[in-house]
Amino acid sequence: MPGQKKDRPQDLAARLVRGDRRAASRLITLVENGGPGADEMMKRVYPHTGRSMLVGITGPGGSGKSTLIDHLIGRFRKRDLRVGVVAVDPSSPFTGGALLGDRVRFQRYAMDEGVFVRSMGSRGYTGGLARATTDVCRILEAMGNDVVIIETLGAGQDEIDIIHVAQTCILVLTPGMGDDIQAMKAGIMEIAHLIVLNKADLEGAGACLRSLEAVLEDAGGRRTEGAWNPRVIPTVAWARRPGDVSGMEALEEAILAHQAHLRETPGLRCANERRVERELRLIFRDALEKHVISGLEGTGRKEEFLREIIERRNDPYSVVEEILGETLKKPEI
Amino acid sequence: MPGQKKDRPQDLAARLVRGDRRAASRLITLVENGGPGADEMMKRVYPHTGRSMLVGITGPGGSGKSTLIDHLIGRFRKRDLRVGVVAVDPSSPFTGGALLGDRVRFQRYAMDEGVFVRSMGSRGYTGGLARATTDVCRILEAMGNDVVIIETLGAGQDEIDIIHVAQTCILVLTPGMGDDIQAMKAGIMEIAHLIVLNKADLEGAGACLRSLEAVLEDAGGRRTEGAWNPRVIPTVAWARRPGDVSGMEALEEAILAHQAHLRETPGLRCANERRVERELRLIFRDALEKHVISGLEGTGRKEEFLREIIERRNDPYSVVEEILGETLKKPEI
Repeated sequence: MPGQKKDRPQDLAARLVRGDRRAASRLITLVENGGPGADEMMKRVYPHTGRSMLVGITGPGGSGKSTLIDHLIGRFRKRDLRVGVVAVDPSSPFTGGALLGDRVRFQRYAMDEGVFVRSMGSRGYTGGLARATTDVCRILEAMGNDVVIIETLGAGQDEIDIIHVAQTCILVLTPGMGDDIQAMKAGIMEIAHLIVLNKADLEGAGACLRSLEAVLEDAGGRRTEGAWNPRVIPTVAWARRPGDVSGMEALEEAILAHQAHLRETPGLRCANERRVERELRLIFRDALEKHVISGLEGTGRKEEFLREIIERRNDPYSVVEEILGETLKKPEI
Repeated sequence: MPGQKKDRPQDLAARLVRGDRRAASRLITLVENGGPGADEMMKRVYPHTGRSMLVGITGPGGSGKSTLIDHLIGRFRKRDLRVGVVAVDPSSPFTGGALLGDRVRFQRYAMDEGVFVRSMGSRGYTGGLARATTDVCRILEAMGNDVVIIETLGAGQDEIDIIHVAQTCILVLTPGMGDDIQAMKAGIMEIAHLIVLNKADLEGAGACLRSLEAVLEDAGGRRTEGAWNPRVIPTVAWARRPGDVSGMEALEEAILAHQAHLRETPGLRCANERRVERELRLIFRDALEKHVISGLEGTGRKEEFLREIIERRNDPYSVVEEILGETLKKPEI
C-alpha cells in the first residue's frame, strides 16, 4: 500500500528535506504525540538542520506579536526567503490545543508555498512543551526554511525556555508599561537582542522609548567589546490606514544586522552551543522519565511507594534516592 | 556560636513545626536555592505534613485572585484557622523575583501571627518552579497552617502543574469571556472544583453565569455517581462601597463543602496519591539532572558531545541514548 510506505521514517525525512508540506505536518504530529518512533525520526531530520536564521519573538498578550510577524513574513518573502513559523499559543491555558490556530493566523499566506505556519497549544505534550517546540523548530529548519520564527507569549518558565531556541530574540513591549521597565531591566537584558516598542503611536510612547534607551545605555557600559548592543525599535504594526504602519523596515534590517553580527563573531557558535546543551537536557529528561519512572508502572512497586509516602512511613525524597540507587550505575548521591 | 547552631537541619525543622516564622522563611530560602542540604531538610519536614486543607486559586491576570484571597484569609482567621499563602507571581516574566512581592500583598495581615505569605517569582529555581512550589507548600503545612492557599496565574504548563498540588482547585473568571467559555470547556472541567465568576456586577455577568452553568450541567451528565459536582459562585471581591462586596460567604462555604466531600469519599486519598506521584516525578527529575548531567561537567565530555552535535557528526537523540546507556543499570532503550 503506497499510503503506508510513504510514512516510513526514511521516506518522511527525505520528503521533508525536499520541502514537502505534508511530510512536515506528519512529522510534527509524530513529535507532538511523542510516540516511540519520534526520536528515530528526529535523528534523520537532525543532519539537515542548522542553516536557518532562528528568530524568537516574545512579549505580553496584546502587544501585537502576530501582526508584527505578519509584516515580517511579507518582507522576508520579498527577499525570496522561505519562512517557517512556530506559534506557541497559550492564550487559552485551559484548552489543550491552540485556540487561535493556524487557520486564523497569517491567513494571507495560506496559498504561499514559501510560508509554513504551525500553532502549538501550551500543554498536552508528553515530553513537555519546550521539548516539542524544539523538535518542531528542527523540522522547519530541515524543511529548508531560510527563516524560522518562534512566537511565544512572555509568561512562565516554559515560554522563557522556548525563546532560547532562537538566535535572535525580540521582545515586544508597548507604551504604558512605564514603571515596569526598571523592574524588568535584568530580564530584558538577558533575553532581548532587539526590543520592539510597538504601538509607538500611543500616548506615552516617547517616555517609554526614553526609559528603554536609558536601560540599554546603562547596561551598555558593562558590556564586553565587540558584544552586540541591543537596540530599541519603535513600530506601529497595525494602523487604520496601512500607510501609517511604520518601523517594519527598521525591524527587518535590525534582525539581519544581528544575524550578520552573529556570523562575524563567535556569537553564532555560542548560541548554537547553548541551544544544543538545552536540547540535550530536554531530550535527556524526557527519555529518563519514559524509561525509569514508567519502568515502575505495572510492577506494583509504584503503588507501594505511594502508600508508604502517604502513610508517612517514608518520604518522597528518600524514595527518589532509593530508585536512583537501583537505576544508576554509579549512584553518587 | 548559637546563630550557627540554630540553622542545623534538625533545629530548623523542629522550630518550623512549632510555627516559627523565621525558621519557615529560612527553610523556604534553602529550598528555593536548591542547595545540597535542601533534600535533607525536606525529609525532616515531610512527616509533619498532610493535615492542612490545600486550596489552589488560578485564573487570568486581572481576574481579582489576590482580592479574593484577601477576603478568604479574613474569613478563615475568624474561624481561628491559621493560613499560609504561596503566591506564584509571574506577572513580570522578565524579573527573577516576585514583582508584587509579599510586602504589597495582603498587607493588612502583616501583624497577624496566624497568617504567613510567601511570593515566588516564576523562575530562577534550580529544580524548576513546580518543584520549589511543592516544597514551599509542604513547609507551610508542617508549620501548622490549617489552610494553605496556592495562588497562580493561569498561563503555561508550569502554572497548570502547580495548581495540581491543591486538593480544592478554584478557577477565577470574569464576565466578558463569553466565547472563550465553550473553548475552555474541557480544561475547566479538568482543573476546577469551584468556578468563581468574579466582578459579577459587570455587564454581561448574567449571560456568562448561564454559559458556565450550562457547561457544568452538560459535563454533569457524564459524571460517576458520588463524584463532586463543580459549581459556579458569582462574587464581587472589590467594590467602591465595602457593603457591595458579595459572594464571599458562599465561596468559603463551598470550599469547606468540597473539603468535607473529599474526606467523606475516597477523593482525598486519590488527590493525595496524584499529588505524591507528581512530587516524586519532580524530585526525581531534579535529582537525575543534578547527578547525571552535571556528572559530565568538568570532564570535557560535554564539550566533546556539543562539538560533535554542532558539526553534525552526531545528533542530540543518539547522544542521549549513549549517556543513558552508560548511566542506567538496565538501559532498556
